[in-house]
Amino acid sequence: MYGLIGKFVAVAGQRDALIALLLDCTGAMPGCLSYVVATDPKDADTVWITEVWTHEASHKASLNLPAVQAAIKQAMPLIASFGEGMQTRPVGGYGLASSNG
Amino acid sequence: MYGLIGKFVAVAGQRDALIALLLDCTGAMPGCLSYVVATDPKDADTVWITEVWTHEASHKASLNLPAVQAAIKQAMPLIASFGEGMQTRPVGGYGLASSNG
Repeated sequence: MYGLIGKFVAVAGQRDALIALLLDCTGAMPGCLSYVVATDPKDADTVWITEVWTHEASHKASLNLPAVQAAIKQAMPLIASFGEGMQTRPVGGYGLASSNG
Repeated sequence: MYGLIGKFVAVAGQRDALIALLLDCTGAMPGCLSYVVATDPKDADTVWITEVWTHEASHKASLNLPAVQAAIKQAMPLIASFGEGMQTRPVGGYGLASSNG
């Protein structure tokens, strides 16, 4: 499996609009096992995203899906900066979906 | 929802034993929606854990479950240090289980 832990900092006041875009296309990404969007109790503009994919290639391919490309285009003006980002290698756990495509 | 992103650094050579303990009790924690254990491609001793719970209280209560207390007792000697840890407020996404208890 392939995992990502990432932090976005939204333009002030745009966090919830950014979250709505991020959530909008999570249901139809082949190879996606988990995609969780969270706010940060310590910072009103921060968004945390944790992802689990079957393979790194599935994640890369998702970036070319028309719905994802449209969302990225809409989201970019709402993002002030990118914070820490980590790649991980998930090995198991609870709550991983079956691959949805 | 209540989320945690945490990093453990295992005692050298003990990462996989630590992971086995972490995975062993993930199936029976009431209020747990996601619990993913991952290795780190950049560091052979690092373990990342990302968790989603219905409420902070569910997470706290899990620490008192006999199986979890036994796992913590076995795991502590395998942990060299605790790295970054973030609390998050998950708002949605894909792959969240139904609460299993």
